[in-house]
Amino acid sequence: MPNTIQQIMHERKSVRKYKEDVVIPREKLQALLENAISAPSSSNMQPWRFIVIDDQQVKKELRPIANDQEQVETSSAIIAVLGDLEMYKNSEQIYNTNYEKGYMPRELADLMIKNSLSMYGSLPEDIIKNIVHFDAGLVSMQIMLLAKEMGYDTVPMGGFDKAKFAEKFNLPKNEVPIILIAIGEAAAPAYGSSRLPLEQITKFI
Amino acid sequence: MPNTIQQIMHERKSVRKYKEDVVIPREKLQALLENAISAPSSSNMQPWRFIVIDDQQVKKELRPIANDQEQVETSSAIIAVLGDLEMYKNSEQIYNTNYEKGYMPRELADLMIKNSLSMYGSLPEDIIKNIVHFDAGLVSMQIMLLAKEMGYDTVPMGGFDKAKFAEKFNLPKNEVPIILIAIGEAAAPAYGSSRLPLEQITKFI
Repeated sequence: MPNTIQQIMHERKSVRKYKEDVVIPREKLQALLENAISAPSSSNMQPWRFIVIDDQQVKKELRPIANDQEQVETSSAIIAVLGDLEMYKNSEQIYNTNYEKGYMPRELADLMIKNSLSMYGSLPEDIIKNIVHFDAGLVSMQIMLLAKEMGYDTVPMGGFDKAKFAEKFNLPKNEVPIILIAIGEAAAPAYGSSRLPLEQITKFI
Repeated sequence: MPNTIQQIMHERKSVRKYKEDVVIPREKLQALLENAISAPSSSNMQPWRFIVIDDQQVKKELRPIANDQEQVETSSAIIAVLGDLEMYKNSEQIYNTNYEKGYMPRELADLMIKNSLSMYGSLPEDIIKNIVHFDAGLVSMQIMLLAKEMGYDTVPMGGFDKAKFAEKFNLPKNEVPIILIAIGEAAAPAYGSSRLPLEQITKFI
């Protein structure tokens, strides 16, 4: 069976050499993200936010902020995944839409809104940050797999100056930068990379 | 094209009703995890750890720790994804294996080990926690997609008493519980769930 999820997962590797001047149409990047946000999230709060940077000049300016990594400039686009620490403020919009689409009765939607606002609104910031990072991981994995299915390669980059990134892109205080994902056409294959043996990291009970 | 990644992503929904008494052979769960850990991680440190709970009595005992959610007991297994805050202590093993497999020269492996130990070893715990949660998100998404491809359904549960979980399963201090993923055969379809419009959460630059 060609192109199973399993195969694509193993074919996806972190590529750091890209063919320059490859343009990915914005409609394609949009379609990719539209599919990626089918990922689940804590109470469906969808804390992920995206800045897609495909302007060559802006990518050039981003490079020193991202440890001078070449792929920031040579890949076709950078998808910056941010986390909104105030994601629960969208709970009305999210659960009202669920009600309108017939997914849940009015009373349940109201209860979910009330509970989300009070629960997330009272959590300490470090716990919210953990939730938002986990959910950003879910959507980022879908982005990288979809990219591979579309014939592109990616590399996730956590090593960048987050304060400088926030400053450059005028992020509001509630949005934290989490990962930069470079996407483009590979110019050289990825390095190999090993994994710890499963039995070393897993217990069955 | 049947069973594209895109389709499976949209078919994956959080299922909360499971057929009881469905047994998933441990070899299948093992194969699932073997494939899932192809996910990338920060410096390939693979901070994820797994406890797979398929013993009916242990699942029963876990239920009150996990907000009394029925699927903890009725699903076939719970995959608890933990994060190792001292994951960088495996850097020697990881990069020595990369060298032995011919993925990188000795000098580069040594440099990666040295850098990983000094960098992660000096990061504040809250930053390590963010990294570990993000990477746990990556591997968890692969687990849920692979499960769907194998004909199973899942639901990720972040709402559980993490302190009690750590106590019950005697977690060492450096391992934090992150998410419980129930897996099994659906007995009823998932609820619908909406998404925020992409243009509301995305900027193109």
